[in-house]
Amino acid sequence: MPWRDPKSAIQKLALPHVAALEAYTPGLQPAEPGWIKLNTNENPYPPSPRVVDALRRAVGGDGASLRLYPDPRSQALRAAVGRLHGLTPDHVFIGNGADDILNLLTRCFCAPAGAAGFTLPSYSLYPVLVGIQDGRAIALDFDRSMRLPVDPIARSPAKVFFLTSPNAPTGVGFPAAEIEAILRRFRGLLVVDETYAAFARENVAKFVARRPNLCVVRTLSKSHCLAGMRLGYALAHPAAIGLLDRVKDSYNVSRLAQAAGLAALGDPAYYAPLVRRVKATRDRVWRTWTKRLGWFTYPSQSNFLFTEPRTRTGRTGPGVARGLCDFLRARKILVRYFGSHALTSSFLRISVGTDQEMLVLQENLEAWLRHA
Amino acid sequence: MPWRDPKSAIQKLALPHVAALEAYTPGLQPAEPGWIKLNTNENPYPPSPRVVDALRRAVGGDGASLRLYPDPRSQALRAAVGRLHGLTPDHVFIGNGADDILNLLTRCFCAPAGAAGFTLPSYSLYPVLVGIQDGRAIALDFDRSMRLPVDPIARSPAKVFFLTSPNAPTGVGFPAAEIEAILRRFRGLLVVDETYAAFARENVAKFVARRPNLCVVRTLSKSHCLAGMRLGYALAHPAAIGLLDRVKDSYNVSRLAQAAGLAALGDPAYYAPLVRRVKATRDRVWRTWTKRLGWFTYPSQSNFLFTEPRTRTGRTGPGVARGLCDFLRARKILVRYFGSHALTSSFLRISVGTDQEMLVLQENLEAWLRHA
Repeated sequence: MPWRDPKSAIQKLALPHVAALEAYTPGLQPAEPGWIKLNTNENPYPPSPRVVDALRRAVGGDGASLRLYPDPRSQALRAAVGRLHGLTPDHVFIGNGADDILNLLTRCFCAPAGAAGFTLPSYSLYPVLVGIQDGRAIALDFDRSMRLPVDPIARSPAKVFFLTSPNAPTGVGFPAAEIEAILRRFRGLLVVDETYAAFARENVAKFVARRPNLCVVRTLSKSHCLAGMRLGYALAHPAAIGLLDRVKDSYNVSRLAQAAGLAALGDPAYYAPLVRRVKATRDRVWRTWTKRLGWFTYPSQSNFLFTEPRTRTGRTGPGVARGLCDFLRARKILVRYFGSHALTSSFLRISVGTDQEMLVLQENLEAWLRHA
Repeated sequence: MPWRDPKSAIQKLALPHVAALEAYTPGLQPAEPGWIKLNTNENPYPPSPRVVDALRRAVGGDGASLRLYPDPRSQALRAAVGRLHGLTPDHVFIGNGADDILNLLTRCFCAPAGAAGFTLPSYSLYPVLVGIQDGRAIALDFDRSMRLPVDPIARSPAKVFFLTSPNAPTGVGFPAAEIEAILRRFRGLLVVDETYAAFARENVAKFVARRPNLCVVRTLSKSHCLAGMRLGYALAHPAAIGLLDRVKDSYNVSRLAQAAGLAALGDPAYYAPLVRRVKATRDRVWRTWTKRLGWFTYPSQSNFLFTEPRTRTGRTGPGVARGLCDFLRARKILVRYFGSHALTSSFLRISVGTDQEMLVLQENLEAWLRHA
């Protein structure tokens, strides 16, 4: 009777690499109100009123449309995204969040015999996804300059390489010309995760039409204030999109998510000034921390700042960063600490909130400075 | 320059089993109105008014909550589902539809060296999911009696076995005692896909607490009229739930889906009479087809009927079934034809619609009979 010890029976039955897996740890999502939430890079502003209208229309008076399955291919949304980027709908895939797409990409290209590459530091989900596939991982290290390792990526034997630009958790954006230099030589598929591209100076979506080894992944979570809806998209050669279509869940995007996405992409006049506002807040805070506090902070092209806290007496390091994270948390301000890599463990990643939220944060940073 | 022929370059780069994969074909979801849609087993009635209220509240006046990520673990919903089944929240997993969960189960247990089992005929997604994992498949055939092959399943070396009960596309429900007989002897994890359990005489959710090799999968698509929302759940031993938690997308269920699910499960007084109505329509139509038309139709414990159309002159077979499917489609009535298996190719699967829809269907069946 192998099931007498259920826990061990299930562990033994599971694929060994899954049983040994360390799960991805998402940032804390407190259920109760009253927190200043600067830990998961959400946009501090509400989505377009057109999204609210579209959702109300989709729900309708009695919710009757919800009884019907959604369009399995999200065709209207594919067409809208295609128009936005000057591509055909065949170049577009819609996902249940960008994570859904990153996951499907590993399923298409990554295995024990097929390596997936990524940089360190970067989005910490990539190694988890590679682990779920029992895949071979090629991790390329940055140095503190955070300059893009063009040659190592271009020469890497990875079948798929995940590059986040602007990068997380640093906020550093990479020049499009350097990414194109990779594309000219890299033999695998380069996935450029442009989660934060709306807040950057440039992006590489324009290369998709002529670079078949490029897949750009976007999300509406940050740029369009829809993290709660779960919506992302990929732009790539139709042959790559065709692979994603084969491995996706049949109905991966709900009716309401499709309706919200269409409405959000249809209202650039709402989102453009909102993105400008986030960038203005970000740049003002960057100057304060860099100039007034003397904290080394990477120039950010995203909606967060990656900063190295420094005590009154000039100390930096993991203890200082973790200490400040805990100090803020005790005051109901959430920021994110990544202790597992030498290039991140002395830093905090702090999302750009409203001006008011950043003011409260600043007061608390100064309170900490008086004691630390 | 390997990228000169992009399509072939991408095919070569993809994992061979993915490049060769045949995708799952979902039923047609027409974009334009005017169809009688009896092809994907949707519930013909709208969801509870509490769902509509909950969605309105979750969206709010300005949609501000949508900017925030959902609870990654859907904890409130896990607790509600647990209460419903007399289990702890640790026995519950919430998925972006039941398909999300079936997919994650293959990722935990199925590989080239770890077989997944299923019956034929059954939900045609299972072999596709096994294919995406490059897994070994064990397919056990029914005969026309559609009696559960208890011994072959119990003795099968599958690490995970997918059993749909009531089964699709036949609608035949299996006795709980027979499923328990499998559980007593089967060494793998038995996944009982109870998509249609709300319309059945019995189910096996009650065994979860004492049978650690059982995983029950449910969906709110049919029983709760929420196919468009994407919501499913699994009930299993906490160790099995822990595996699913390791391989799931971090934020797999949107804020609105979580809100809708809580409201729907909180309103059994709305859903009980609605399920009774679907069953009454089903049983009435079953009698008409069986007695008046003389069509062999499996006794159904689901919200659809699996019937073998017979012409005036007594002919049955794949040509007859496909012909009727086309005839109905030309009259804007969608039903489902499964031509790929000898036990299904002479049949049509027809969802239970409203009484009015079934009346229109009946008129069209009789029109077909006059010509066929």
